[in-house]
Amino acid sequence: MRFEDLIESIRSKVNHKLENMPLPVYPEYLYDPIRYSIVNKGKRFRAILTHLTGRANKIDSKAVMHISLAVELLHNFTLVHDDIMDDDTVRHGKMTIHEKWDSSTAILTGDGIYTIAQIILAKISKNFKSLSKYFNKTTLEICEGQGLDKQFENDKSIKIESYLDMIDKKTGSLIGASSALPIIYQGGSEDLINTYEKFGRSLGKGFQIHDDLLEVTTNSHVMGKSLGSDIHNGKQTIMVILARDSFPRQWDELVKNSDRDNIVKNSFAFFDKKGIIREVRSISDSYFESSLDYLKGLENTTTQELKQLVHLIKNRTY
Amino acid sequence: MRFEDLIESIRSKVNHKLENMPLPVYPEYLYDPIRYSIVNKGKRFRAILTHLTGRANKIDSKAVMHISLAVELLHNFTLVHDDIMDDDTVRHGKMTIHEKWDSSTAILTGDGIYTIAQIILAKISKNFKSLSKYFNKTTLEICEGQGLDKQFENDKSIKIESYLDMIDKKTGSLIGASSALPIIYQGGSEDLINTYEKFGRSLGKGFQIHDDLLEVTTNSHVMGKSLGSDIHNGKQTIMVILARDSFPRQWDELVKNSDRDNIVKNSFAFFDKKGIIREVRSISDSYFESSLDYLKGLENTTTQELKQLVHLIKNRTY
Repeated sequence: MRFEDLIESIRSKVNHKLENMPLPVYPEYLYDPIRYSIVNKGKRFRAILTHLTGRANKIDSKAVMHISLAVELLHNFTLVHDDIMDDDTVRHGKMTIHEKWDSSTAILTGDGIYTIAQIILAKISKNFKSLSKYFNKTTLEICEGQGLDKQFENDKSIKIESYLDMIDKKTGSLIGASSALPIIYQGGSEDLINTYEKFGRSLGKGFQIHDDLLEVTTNSHVMGKSLGSDIHNGKQTIMVILARDSFPRQWDELVKNSDRDNIVKNSFAFFDKKGIIREVRSISDSYFESSLDYLKGLENTTTQELKQLVHLIKNRTY
Repeated sequence: MRFEDLIESIRSKVNHKLENMPLPVYPEYLYDPIRYSIVNKGKRFRAILTHLTGRANKIDSKAVMHISLAVELLHNFTLVHDDIMDDDTVRHGKMTIHEKWDSSTAILTGDGIYTIAQIILAKISKNFKSLSKYFNKTTLEICEGQGLDKQFENDKSIKIESYLDMIDKKTGSLIGASSALPIIYQGGSEDLINTYEKFGRSLGKGFQIHDDLLEVTTNSHVMGKSLGSDIHNGKQTIMVILARDSFPRQWDELVKNSDRDNIVKNSFAFFDKKGIIREVRSISDSYFESSLDYLKGLENTTTQELKQLVHLIKNRTY
């Protein structure tokens, strides 16, 4: 099977499970938006990583499926709540919960989805306590990452180290968990769990930085619009931090002299001219390299598919 | 020891644990409001029930403490999110999180507290999987109860049966869990777990209805104000439902002809004159009686303290 077809087949199985999850109908206030939210056009990248880790280590595919669904639902819950906090109105091409319903509905929907994630995780018997501990430790780290992200808003003194720490917590921790959890289920050594976690964290940071980059280099009207408002709202992205750090006065001038309509175009031109695009690309590449290095340490394991996943993510253009 | 002193000593130990919980400082955005929220003047009634159940069954007090903290934090998390949804500004005599900070902070604070509740629960080894399953099933039921509460707002067709179902989920489920979880830890039979759950659910419903009653019979300015706005906001309470059901036109007239300042006085006079206060008191009493009946079925257990707790709750006046 071609690697792309393998990925598509995993994504399709995960989507099938999510779409057919047996959920009550009543109360509609809770379950209508939950169903709306978990059936979406997301990349299911975290779930796919869990499945590929499971395949590389010949782990029981039923348990791997439960883990992958729990991870994907945890991700989903954080998006629903983050979208309220950032007042984002569109996600995966459709209205966010708080936009389609209201904030109260979205708060409760997120709470419900996170709870369902835990209930699904508890379908696993072997090493459940370790899985649960790791799962919740990860959630708290994601909350810390989101806390940092909010704390950094409008703080013009934020340096790149703080930004990298923030995305390690907000994005890296869950992608690390997506790869470490199957190993915990299998009863792997501390060392092996750590290696998979670090592999996932590096991949996650590369992914996030690459994502920030795609936001400015993609022509998508929607992405561009959201980036423009991000900059105006004082949201920190790696490019803004680097621009401000190396060219403080010029960057301030640019923001001051741009409005919502032309800020994306203006800042892209600035990032490009000043070599910031290239610099950011090289930072994300170094994380992808580092994730591949962790895989090299795994003898006796067929890591071919995990390597291919790194390359797929590294080379994605949308 | 007098029973009141026992209760006070348990409350004080629970508060001590909550106040001294080892939490990180950074990021302040997340942990400042978490600390602010969990150190409060709450009655700790759920935690006390857990400890008394533990005492009645001679269960390891360390495990009971972990369960009681998890239960109390779960309760705390739901309050933080409910307060956003209902836009309540004061809780336990101090500003709510979304009022003191903002909604984004309060959403993340609630998420963090719920996660910490799970991490504390995972300190228990024996029967952890059953504990975790029950804990999360309970959380989902609380979400359903809150969903119903929101769904019922401004729905004038709601009957008392729906209201009782709503409070069973929103309040009864967690009070049931507070009493059932120590039994699950102990490895008690399905029957025994069910009896404690039903005992707690009945107690919880009695408690909630009694609480609704105290809101109108107490002279507290704050409670009265919040009740007045509840009625204006279309929030369903048992007294409003009974008044509307038995005296639809007179009740509509009263609401129409009252403003925020006199609606509490007017509705109290109405409830009193029409015998609704007496009727509601008798409904809550019947739940307290039913909870005592469940205790009678427990042979070979010293249920004296649990009985005393029921009476304490039944007779509270604030």
